[in-house]
Amino acid sequence: MRNIRLVIQYDGTNYSGWQVQPKVVTIQGILQEKIGNITGEKTTVLGAGRTDAGVHAIGQIGAFRTSSQLSSTIVQNALNATLPHDIRILNACDDDTSFHPRYDAKSKRYFYVISPARTLSPFFYRYAWKVPYTLDIDAMNCAVQLLKGRHDFSAFRASGCSAKNTIKTVFRLSIERSETMEFMCTKINGAFLRIVIDADSFLRHMVRNIIGTLIEIGKGRIRAGTISEILSSKDRRCAGPCAPASGLFLDKVSY
Amino acid sequence: MRNIRLVIQYDGTNYSGWQVQPKVVTIQGILQEKIGNITGEKTTVLGAGRTDAGVHAIGQIGAFRTSSQLSSTIVQNALNATLPHDIRILNACDDDTSFHPRYDAKSKRYFYVISPARTLSPFFYRYAWKVPYTLDIDAMNCAVQLLKGRHDFSAFRASGCSAKNTIKTVFRLSIERSETMEFMCTKINGAFLRIVIDADSFLRHMVRNIIGTLIEIGKGRIRAGTISEILSSKDRRCAGPCAPASGLFLDKVSY
Repeated sequence: MRNIRLVIQYDGTNYSGWQVQPKVVTIQGILQEKIGNITGEKTTVLGAGRTDAGVHAIGQIGAFRTSSQLSSTIVQNALNATLPHDIRILNACDDDTSFHPRYDAKSKRYFYVISPARTLSPFFYRYAWKVPYTLDIDAMNCAVQLLKGRHDFSAFRASGCSAKNTIKTVFRLSIERSETMEFMCTKINGAFLRIVIDADSFLRHMVRNIIGTLIEIGKGRIRAGTISEILSSKDRRCAGPCAPASGLFLDKVSY
Repeated sequence: MRNIRLVIQYDGTNYSGWQVQPKVVTIQGILQEKIGNITGEKTTVLGAGRTDAGVHAIGQIGAFRTSSQLSSTIVQNALNATLPHDIRILNACDDDTSFHPRYDAKSKRYFYVISPARTLSPFFYRYAWKVPYTLDIDAMNCAVQLLKGRHDFSAFRASGCSAKNTIKTVFRLSIERSETMEFMCTKINGAFLRIVIDADSFLRHMVRNIIGTLIEIGKGRIRAGTISEILSSKDRRCAGPCAPASGLFLDKVSY
């Protein structure tokens, strides 16, 4: 059996997330359907990150096993010819049969886009969270320092999350400001915040709960210093709300 | 009667163009409906450019008359609260009662985005024309020189176009290459071409027919030098095909 590794980019707006579920359209589901049509085999596509409904990916990594003789380039071209335009295979190549996109990942990087403008461009409403407040970036940066590193992130996981290991290492968490955002090489007016988070792995909703908490801190509703207490409480109710899915992008998976 | 001037940005993907038509959703139609709900008056929203179905606008200019006492800021906020997310009012202000967005325009600038990559990002498929060829940019630039200036553009107008004055002045026509395109401050791989055209006014489909012809020249199917003959033929059949609407943006209107 071959193991084919995929680099997958998608606009998650119209999908019920990565993972196959009954009666809804998911990225994994549609990939498995199209690969089945091409190879004639039923297969499971493993993914590096099980993105939620509405979350996007710049470089999701997938892998599937096949006994097909088709070259990986032909598989890539056939997939791009049959997949909807909002899912693209940027690369396909043969990998070790042991390669597992999630278990083998050393780290995953996500970014989250926030627009503090009162009016969000029609070209960005699917890709940013509109937060029309003047945010206290200094306070947010204090919180960032407390969140970085190795912690039990139980307070930041979704109530339904059943992961056994709740201790994760956040390698990078940074807040970037840009005065304008480019779209099609044209500056679209309005400043943006972009929060980048890189960790060894993530609990369910961990990024969105961290973002929601950072925004509450930026609004002055939670003090930055309480992050340590929130972490040690291990209680989801102590952290801020879950940020909307639309601003979140799975950017890069490192192996 | 007041005359309120609007700066309108929209993603044209889900609309049957600017102009009101029976039984379909148009930008002008939805604006008139929402303004009517806010002011309680039936009104006509004049636009600077009657963009086709699927064409986008960064800075469309509109104007409507009203006897409402509502401030222009309240009108703007109320419109943004009720319009779909893919249409935004970037500004609203009172203008001279004589102001006409189209008749008063000195020039209108459009840009058109072309992706020569084999794979078009899911974040760009609504906004670019995929042309997976190595284009001869030098030849295209020769054609550009022949198209600039004051000419009868009859050969580049849609068959149904009934404009009386077919002589237009193209102030600017330029081809810009960028090796990568940014999306949400992230470089999305793949080079792009961006063609900018600025003219005093345009015939129906003129930009898209010019773009379609330039691409034929880039592919080597039409010689750049024949532009002069195409112009003097005044015959639509001599020019290249109409480029798809999705790559086209009404960028800026100057008064």
